[in-house]
Amino acid sequence: MFDRISIIGCGLIGSSILRALKEKDIAKEVCVHDNSDEVLSFLKKKNLCKNITKDINTCVKNSDLIIIASPLSSYKEIILSIKENLKSGAILTDTGSVKCKVNSIIENMNLKNVTWLGSHPIAGTEESGPSAGFSKLFENRWCIISPAEETRKKEINKLKKFWEALGSKVKIMSIKEHDYILSLTSHLPHAIAYNIVRTAIGNDDKFKDDIIQYSAGGLRDFTRIASSNPLMWRDIFIDNSENILKVLNDFSKSLDDLKSAIAEKNFTKLSEIFSSTKEIRKEIIKAGQDVKSPDFGRKKS
Amino acid sequence: MFDRISIIGCGLIGSSILRALKEKDIAKEVCVHDNSDEVLSFLKKKNLCKNITKDINTCVKNSDLIIIASPLSSYKEIILSIKENLKSGAILTDTGSVKCKVNSIIENMNLKNVTWLGSHPIAGTEESGPSAGFSKLFENRWCIISPAEETRKKEINKLKKFWEALGSKVKIMSIKEHDYILSLTSHLPHAIAYNIVRTAIGNDDKFKDDIIQYSAGGLRDFTRIASSNPLMWRDIFIDNSENILKVLNDFSKSLDDLKSAIAEKNFTKLSEIFSSTKEIRKEIIKAGQDVKSPDFGRKKS
Repeated sequence: MFDRISIIGCGLIGSSILRALKEKDIAKEVCVHDNSDEVLSFLKKKNLCKNITKDINTCVKNSDLIIIASPLSSYKEIILSIKENLKSGAILTDTGSVKCKVNSIIENMNLKNVTWLGSHPIAGTEESGPSAGFSKLFENRWCIISPAEETRKKEINKLKKFWEALGSKVKIMSIKEHDYILSLTSHLPHAIAYNIVRTAIGNDDKFKDDIIQYSAGGLRDFTRIASSNPLMWRDIFIDNSENILKVLNDFSKSLDDLKSAIAEKNFTKLSEIFSSTKEIRKEIIKAGQDVKSPDFGRKKS
Repeated sequence: MFDRISIIGCGLIGSSILRALKEKDIAKEVCVHDNSDEVLSFLKKKNLCKNITKDINTCVKNSDLIIIASPLSSYKEIILSIKENLKSGAILTDTGSVKCKVNSIIENMNLKNVTWLGSHPIAGTEESGPSAGFSKLFENRWCIISPAEETRKKEINKLKKFWEALGSKVKIMSIKEHDYILSLTSHLPHAIAYNIVRTAIGNDDKFKDDIIQYSAGGLRDFTRIASSNPLMWRDIFIDNSENILKVLNDFSKSLDDLKSAIAEKNFTKLSEIFSSTKEIRKEIIKAGQDVKSPDFGRKKS
């Protein structure tokens, strides 16, 4: 498929790709770059890769596929430093959660004989760093590939096969649609989770212990998402600010509606609101996007 | 402990109490009342209780402990119909999520020789009905007992021992404090979960399939809570409207703050916001209130 693959940034996502490549023997050669000494020494210690380097140009040299798996705000500098050293015919992809802004940055760079083709694996956990990665992270998860208009089918198919080899189901989606859909299914929930946890704990330090103690009433669900990598999420909110502000405004309007129903003690309206959201969970479970066991199948660990 | 226990309302919570009583052999006699033929025939079919009745007064007669486990809006009618038939010295409790309003209703009834003493087991799942109940629901979960000021220690201790026998850890908390803490840890998260799912699906039918498909990016977490029993939640929002409106307004203020930071593309502010919520999850896990495995330990079921 690809003789040599380079992974730039080896946190949760990058190290999971690395592990999967090794386990499934997908590439002849894999090279990893990360800026962090801590990350590099972890990879060495765990014997996860033979070719580990702090020199990004050594890493990408002769690679057929280069995967950027670092925060969105680092892309520009990374691509500027490697653009003259990419192999002719190589595919450059990423794993980021927003596409529009990155795409316009890359289009302005006029890459020669290299195909830029963004990917977004809808996979991850609330943890971060290479120790949190695992080879099965992408199995049965969607990966969205968002080509620019001029991208050739041949390259799209090559990248599609790559993600399928990692166990993903692949969807091709326009850049614009990707950023909008994800603002609803991922960025909005994260904004709200961060905000609800801030509201609950920021409210009154006096009650902090009680809030922790009785969080099983609902709050604990939100704390999982709200403990995700802060820098990754900062970048997502900056790159997709327009869509996110739009959906947050929709959310606020809908919340005002709910507040009015509560203030009026409107039985009928509240019943309607609370009934309207029941079906969607069944459909999500039917679509294989969540477990059907109550409470996410939580078991004490 | 109690010779005869009556359970009024046998859904998820009531039937879990019933199962636990049976399994742990806590009472000499248990009697169950429910208005629904479907519920009663389920209990008979599964042989969960010998004493099942549609006549509420037959159910409570001679009982030492009466547990109301039905929606909050049904309490008034239930207590009015049983109040003349309660055994002298009996304890009347419940499992509801709001205490202030119910307490004032009951205080106005002038129960004679009967102790009203509210309980709230912080346990449950997104499912409802007697088939969703299970005997271990209360194990290692908190149960809050909220006495009125005049309640005697003897009765409080009896009820405390009852919940402990079911496996719960018991906390005594004033009615006012209970309703405020729960508005933060449970009612606010439910309001927000319902609202976010409404925003996502109500937005545009055109994207509904995509939203379901890519819900693993965060949204699916919220759909669990937003699929809880709508009538139970309607009643909670009406009974605790004052606290809930207060915390929802705090939430909105905090959200406006987040929106400004996004609109300004304020790196520093966004990093601060997203970093501020990371620690609380660790504390919740340390307090035994959630599992530590990533993704709630979700496994395909």
